[in-house]
Amino acid sequence: MSLVIVGTVAFDAIETPFGKTDKIVGGAATYAGLAASYLYNKVKLISVIGEDFGDQINMLTDKGIAVEGVEIIKGGKSFFWAGKYHNDMNSRDTLVTELNVLADFDPKIPISYQDCEYLLLGNLTPQVQLDTLERLAHKPKLVVLDTMNFWMDVALGDLKKVLQKVDVLTINDAEARQLSGEYSLVKAAESILQMGPSYLIIKKGEHGALLFGDGEVFSAPALPLADVFDPTGAGDTFAGGFIGYLAKVKSVNFANMRNAVIYGSALASFCVEKFGTDRIQNLSRAEIVDRIKQFVTLTKFDIGE
Amino acid sequence: MSLVIVGTVAFDAIETPFGKTDKIVGGAATYAGLAASYLYNKVKLISVIGEDFGDQINMLTDKGIAVEGVEIIKGGKSFFWAGKYHNDMNSRDTLVTELNVLADFDPKIPISYQDCEYLLLGNLTPQVQLDTLERLAHKPKLVVLDTMNFWMDVALGDLKKVLQKVDVLTINDAEARQLSGEYSLVKAAESILQMGPSYLIIKKGEHGALLFGDGEVFSAPALPLADVFDPTGAGDTFAGGFIGYLAKVKSVNFANMRNAVIYGSALASFCVEKFGTDRIQNLSRAEIVDRIKQFVTLTKFDIGE
Repeated sequence: MSLVIVGTVAFDAIETPFGKTDKIVGGAATYAGLAASYLYNKVKLISVIGEDFGDQINMLTDKGIAVEGVEIIKGGKSFFWAGKYHNDMNSRDTLVTELNVLADFDPKIPISYQDCEYLLLGNLTPQVQLDTLERLAHKPKLVVLDTMNFWMDVALGDLKKVLQKVDVLTINDAEARQLSGEYSLVKAAESILQMGPSYLIIKKGEHGALLFGDGEVFSAPALPLADVFDPTGAGDTFAGGFIGYLAKVKSVNFANMRNAVIYGSALASFCVEKFGTDRIQNLSRAEIVDRIKQFVTLTKFDIGE
Repeated sequence: MSLVIVGTVAFDAIETPFGKTDKIVGGAATYAGLAASYLYNKVKLISVIGEDFGDQINMLTDKGIAVEGVEIIKGGKSFFWAGKYHNDMNSRDTLVTELNVLADFDPKIPISYQDCEYLLLGNLTPQVQLDTLERLAHKPKLVVLDTMNFWMDVALGDLKKVLQKVDVLTINDAEARQLSGEYSLVKAAESILQMGPSYLIIKKGEHGALLFGDGEVFSAPALPLADVFDPTGAGDTFAGGFIGYLAKVKSVNFANMRNAVIYGSALASFCVEKFGTDRIQNLSRAEIVDRIKQFVTLTKFDIGE
């Protein structure tokens, strides 16, 4: 039994109002894998990198993350993204996108990954997400899909095919509105849950997240932070924490999903405290337990009887 | 002992994507008074209206709200506001503002109001808010101040004087950023709590509200709604529900304020379901209890030990 994460392992160069980085390790599968590794000990990645990645893959294997499914293309260069965040940290400009080896990504599933019970399809072209699902010998117990507005613009047909095969979709509020054509997030959720997934998570950044499914709604806050240094990877970290928690508790129901959203939110709150993977690479169990307690304190009230 | 609310009692004409109204009764004190009346039975208003208001004042007295402090100006016309909401319901254009009798509002405090223990200073010129405070023989146990960006633009000096005399400030997120000059709401709260109030509530509309004070933070969600027909008065309803709950439980501490924020949010969630005061005028106790339970279900999770 394992948790398999498909997504990018890449280089990022990030500029925010607080500073800028050279090429550092990034990518959706990197953030999601690191986050999940704190909650579950059989995390396995599927991705593609170039020879230029070198021994930096050790930052994943050091956490016990399996990388047999991370293909290294000889002479190839890893996916590279450079972006600059605006002062509000909620919007950003993409400065450089070099697909490199990602352009021909053909996901290979090692035999050792065929025990996959929990699958996170990170933000990638929907065709790669479909290919991954088809190459698994058994349908996983839970499939979580992350995607973005770009794929709604250029590959909506394929995206709708993937949606029919997944259990949980995570997107942000603007994307939920785009996908459904509804402004009200309640109506957007009703519409999207007709497209295939049983559960929908709408990520609202500093405003938290909403989970819809089983006729219920759960609202999770974001932790109010004095400083957000770098939002890069926060959504991927959220997704990794979410599915990592569910893999750990081995039971998928709405009550556990509520908790999973809190774990995802807590891990994402660490992610933004430093540049890149700096913070999410270096967490202690005590820090995570303490952060979860902060979410309890942040949301508790005592009425309703 | 009583809860006194100072604010406008007025006429509104409202247009939203769902329809439009003729002149209907509105005003901050109207919404706040109606909301508070469901939680506390000694609600007393201070305001000014024209003779044109006629017997429509009965909609307040019918709920047991005292109106001895609502001055009627002979031959005068009541304050009138007309506005049109955009499709997102989060922004609006003001079409008409006729101050009328509000231009010379000089708040009179009847002797029967001098038992005021809880005071809500609704959104008004800061000078009127200051005058009201000075004319009370005893400092109330709790003073809640509502204000808006307009007064930050045109009367910041007076507003800062009022801030030094109140216990709780309620403003929205854009106003918190404007007042403090800080983008981070955590830093904005730190800065604003230095200006006088012990507690700050930042209202975020569809994203809920944050309560800061006593070194703690509480995050309350908004109830996700399929349809928002008319946001007019939601903030005033929130404030009325908030202070009404505290007047009812007779004890001001952070734990009770958490509950008060939930009551305010629950009443505000009714307010937006119909035009004007339609919904907030016609609530049953069972409906309110049920809505509070929805907030419990919306936010509950079970980890942290």
